[in-house]
Formats: sequence, structure tokens, C-alpha cells
Amino acid sequence: MKNTYFTPGPAELYPTFQQHIQTAFDKQLGSISHRSQAFRDIYKFTDEQLRTLLNIPKTHAIFFTGSASEVWERLLFNCVEHESFHLVNGSFSQKFYDYAGSLRKFAHKLEKPFGEGFDAADIEVPEYAELVCMTHNETSSGVQMRVADMHKLKKKYPKKLFCVDMVSSAPYPDLDYTLIDSAFFSVQKAFGMPAGLGVWIANQACLEKATRLQQYENLTIGAHHTLPTLWKHYKDFETPATPNVLYIYALGKIAEDFNKIGVGTIRKQTEEKAKMVYKFLEDSDLYSPFVKEERHRSQTVIVADTKKPSAEIIAEAKTAGMVIGSGYGAQKNSQIRIANFPATSAEQVQNLINYLSNSR
Amino acid sequence: MKNTYFTPGPAELYPTFQQHIQTAFDKQLGSISHRSQAFRDIYKFTDEQLRTLLNIPKTHAIFFTGSASEVWERLLFNCVEHESFHLVNGSFSQKFYDYAGSLRKFAHKLEKPFGEGFDAADIEVPEYAELVCMTHNETSSGVQMRVADMHKLKKKYPKKLFCVDMVSSAPYPDLDYTLIDSAFFSVQKAFGMPAGLGVWIANQACLEKATRLQQYENLTIGAHHTLPTLWKHYKDFETPATPNVLYIYALGKIAEDFNKIGVGTIRKQTEEKAKMVYKFLEDSDLYSPFVKEERHRSQTVIVADTKKPSAEIIAEAKTAGMVIGSGYGAQKNSQIRIANFPATSAEQVQNLINYLSNSR
Repeated sequence: MKNTYFTPGPAELYPTFQQHIQTAFDKQLGSISHRSQAFRDIYKFTDEQLRTLLNIPKTHAIFFTGSASEVWERLLFNCVEHESFHLVNGSFSQKFYDYAGSLRKFAHKLEKPFGEGFDAADIEVPEYAELVCMTHNETSSGVQMRVADMHKLKKKYPKKLFCVDMVSSAPYPDLDYTLIDSAFFSVQKAFGMPAGLGVWIANQACLEKATRLQQYENLTIGAHHTLPTLWKHYKDFETPATPNVLYIYALGKIAEDFNKIGVGTIRKQTEEKAKMVYKFLEDSDLYSPFVKEERHRSQTVIVADTKKPSAEIIAEAKTAGMVIGSGYGAQKNSQIRIANFPATSAEQVQNLINYLSNSR
Repeated sequence: MKNTYFTPGPAELYPTFQQHIQTAFDKQLGSISHRSQAFRDIYKFTDEQLRTLLNIPKTHAIFFTGSASEVWERLLFNCVEHESFHLVNGSFSQKFYDYAGSLRKFAHKLEKPFGEGFDAADIEVPEYAELVCMTHNETSSGVQMRVADMHKLKKKYPKKLFCVDMVSSAPYPDLDYTLIDSAFFSVQKAFGMPAGLGVWIANQACLEKATRLQQYENLTIGAHHTLPTLWKHYKDFETPATPNVLYIYALGKIAEDFNKIGVGTIRKQTEEKAKMVYKFLEDSDLYSPFVKEERHRSQTVIVADTKKPSAEIIAEAKTAGMVIGSGYGAQKNSQIRIANFPATSAEQVQNLINYLSNSR
């Protein structure tokens, strides 16, 4: 009897994933050369499916890394000469900020308490900040930033580069890539795959910045997975080093599965399932939504305060075959986190709600 | 009908790989948290199996990255303040050298022509070089450096850090880790897995150097996968970011499979199969071993000059279900490369030899 994972990543695998991997084995894709036409066709297919799904224009390229955390580093190396600016309201946006310090960049931050979110009106970007780092969905606290606010901010500061961490929400956020220079995610969240692949979307402006820093400022932009090298190989649908071919293939097939359903439908289903969970939390005596402002409540990672120690709730739910996430960091034992990704159906979410309603 | 891959990586999958992945699916390892005991047990198991296989002492830790190319960058960031020294005799050792330049390190190189190898007696390490970068098996040219020469060199320069790129040969080289500070490989070569995971072995001396550079020299050693962060998490068998859990699991199981056979037997089988191929090449009118000096001939990636265009040979062999590698770079159409990894049996190698003997 298999468990259903409502954890915020690694998460429940998408129902088709295992079949896609089986097909990959049947085609011996684990052995093909990454300099072969067979691989270039896979990269091209995944690129096309992601473009359709996320509405990515031709100005932007799509690259693969080992993880989304790696993309934090690559973005800062390639797009920041001196100063970056970070909206920080949880552990992951804080880590992105910390990476800038480790790279000896001057990192500014605007900080909000854990559980609170950002609106465009709150934000003033420092004059010399080159890259504005926003987190669409803060996985640690279940807070989202509305896409409209991100777009508004870029319109206010059109000359700065804007990037979006959508690790635990893509394909939910409907970003306007004429306003967003770069965005990234990892596959072990809403795409329902095992961990081991990061996806980095970046435009010409990012590439130009990286090229300038490397060629004219004599700065290091790193050596592995630099934007100029990634882009050069991308033109032929190749990668600079041997990539995770099997997962790139599976990601393309899952994106295709999503496209068959339609991203509009997936987003609507996500909102409907989130509504079910938030309603349950609001009506419950034992749980309450952690994020107070409705507009900042994540649609994909729902965080609840618990009356009793959350470790007990998690242990009990597991006996019923449902795995839910603990609170993050200091909230480990006073909160639960419920992932709401496409891999879990409305019926499965209802089962979880029924279980939590009936257990004391 | 499946092909047999004699390509030097990605390569033929090890016969047990698919079963290990099936077991991982049955156990839902694609969904488990990388902060759970279940994951820590997997990391610990893989660590133990690799230690047994490669005879790695407790002074060294074992880390996971996205690829071995990533390790080139991490090693240079973490272990070089100013100067590195590289033995360059092919495309991959050259890339390692190039990475140092991209990181704005002062990189020395001792270069040999494509197809030639290094002996300890040839080598003088520049006075201020901090890290000596050696390639055990140059995948592009089929040249190996003997382990005894590596050890001799370290004894001559005991104060410098020594690292070994064994990407396309591990577990074949029997390194003495009292003399080798760091070594690394990727899983899509002799371990018979799909690409997507790099393995980095490093000792306390590397860690101390990285800590000093970061804390006292105020240098950047990168932000993602720095040695101090990797090591801190390693103590609990965790990783700083979400790793490729499934592949770490499979690597541990394949290392266990190798240990059941015994690394001595695997090394002996490798040498016997290599001998078969080299003998065939020497006796043939149509092929000849590219590497002239026997002591420099790779046991795991065998390169042959071909009389007729190698593209024709490769296309013909493919019709018989055998995939062999082309020459690298400029040698693309005048050479073939035959991988000799544990995944292909003596019988399969004999079949390839028979086929090549009978085709004109």
C-alpha cells in the first residue's frame, strides 16, 4: 500500500512519471550521447513543451542545472557586478540573499516577518541594485507574492534585472516574460519528479550582462554553467557538460501531459484545491491558516498552525497513508505544511481533509 | 532488440541499474524528504559502499554534485587561492585548466601532445602552485596516468594538494588516499548509470584550505556546494540542497554489487577485456592502437586509429546492435573509442571484436 505525499518537495510523483522513465529505459536513453541528435531532439521537445506551458517567448532561453539552489549562485555570478536586492520573508529567500554575501556581492534586503508577504507598494529598490530577487512562493512559510505586484515593480524600475524564484509554484504563476528577465524552478515540487534537476529561464539582457562582466570587467562569473557557455550550447540544443538526460526527457513528457490538460485548467484546479484546504483550516478548532492576509496565501504550499504538536499529527496521518510536511525550522513542531501540487487530485485532498477533520 | 553501448559515457547501463530504480519506486524514494532518516540511511549506505570499493579512509568525506564538471569548479574555488597546476594531454584535462582561468586563478600547465601520457619523472611542479590537477584517464585520447606515478609525485611535493580526475575510470584506479587529497568521478561511465550525479571525495586538508580562504582571506569560494557547507551537512549524512536522491540510492546499490564481485576481480576483468581489445587492434590491418606507449594505454577507454572513416564503421556496427564511440574533436572521423566498463562482459567485448574482425 503506497503513501500519498502532501510534502512540499520532494513530493508525490506525478502519476505518469514512472511510465515516462520506463519508456526512457526501453529507448535506452540512459546510454545515448549528449552530443547526439537523439539528445538534441529531447532538449528541443522539453524546451517547446515548457514554452507552451509557461508562455515563454523567444527572447528567453531555457537551461538545465543540478538544482534550483545552483541557479541562485549562477544568477548572482552572471547578473550582478556589485549589488543585488532581495525580498526576504523566509528561509529560502534568506538563503538566496546569503548566497550573494558568499559571492562577495553587496546584497541589500527588505525583510518581512515569517508569514508576511510583499506588495509592490511596500518596495523601494535601492539605486545601485542591479538584480531584484523575488520569491514567488516562500516554501518555508507558505507565503506567495502576487504576479501582478512583480510586474508592477519591474515597470517602476525597468532598467534593473528582475528574477523570480518559482521553485515550489511553477507552473502556477502566470509570469509576463516581457517584464521578468529570469525565473527558475526545480522539478521535485509541482512537476512531480524526483529531485536532481533545476530549470533556469533567462533572457538576452541577462546574457549581455554576463558577457560584459566576463569580457570587459574581468570579473569571474564562475566557470561551470556560465550564461555565455550555456547559451552557446543552447543554440544547438546541447549542454556544456553531460546533463541529466533521463530527467530532461521526463520533464518534457510531464510538461506535455500538463499541456494536454491545459495550464489554465491546472491553475484553476490548484486554486480550487487550495480553497478546500484553507476553508477547512478556517472552520477547524485544531488548525488555522498561518498566513493571515488572503492575497499572500500560497496556492501550492499551505501552512497551518496546529493546536497540538504537529509531530503527532504527522505521525497519525502517516498510519493512514498520508504524508504531510512539518513546519520549517523553528516552526517544526507547531505547524504543518500541505503541498498542493498537480500530482495530488481533488479527491486525494478531500480524503486528507476528511481524515484531519475526524482525528482529534 | 536492444543495442550494446561501448560508448565512453553516457555508456551501457549496469545490468542491475533498472532493478534498483524499480525498487526505489516501490519504496517511493522519489518522494522522501532529504531531511529524513530514510535519506540519511541512503547517504550512509552509499558512503560505506564507496569507501569499501575505493578504499577511502575516514580522513576523506564523500559528497554529491550535479556532475564531475561541477567538481572541477568547486575544487578550484575551494582549494586555490592564487595558483593551480594542470597536467594537460587532451580535451578534458584542458577544460579543467580552462575552468581555473575562468575563475581568475593563475593556472600553470604542463602539456603533452594528444595521445601521449605523463610519468612522474617528466614533471616539475611550479613553486607556488597550490593544487596539482591530474587526470587519471583522459577520455578524449584514451591515455591513462599510472597511479604509481601520481603517488610518486605527491611524495616529491608533499605540501601541495593533489587531486585526481577519475571520471572515466573509477573504480579501476587503486588510489592511495594517504597521498591523494581529492578525487572525483561521474556515474555515467564505469558505474553504468545515466548521467546526473557527480561524486567528490576530499580530505581535511582541502576543507582547511577552503575555510582559510573564506574566513581569513575574504575570498569567494563560491556559494553553492562549498566545501565547508558540504562538510557540515555531511556529518549528519545530509546535503546542503535537495540532492538527486534516486541516483544516490542506485549508486550505493551498484557499489554494493561491485563489492560482492570484489574490486580486485573487477579490476582484473577490466584488464583482461582491455588486453583482448588491444591485441585485436595490434593484429588488425584496419585498426591500430592510438596510444603508442603501453604504460599510458587506458584500461577503460580504448582509442583506435581507423583506416576507413570511423563514421562508416560506427554506422555499420550499429546495424549489428553495437554502439561504439567516435573519435573526440578533430579525431572524430579518424578514430573510434571503445569503452571498457564493468557493464559490458568479456563475452560482449568478444562479440564486438568478432564483428569488427569480420567487417571490411
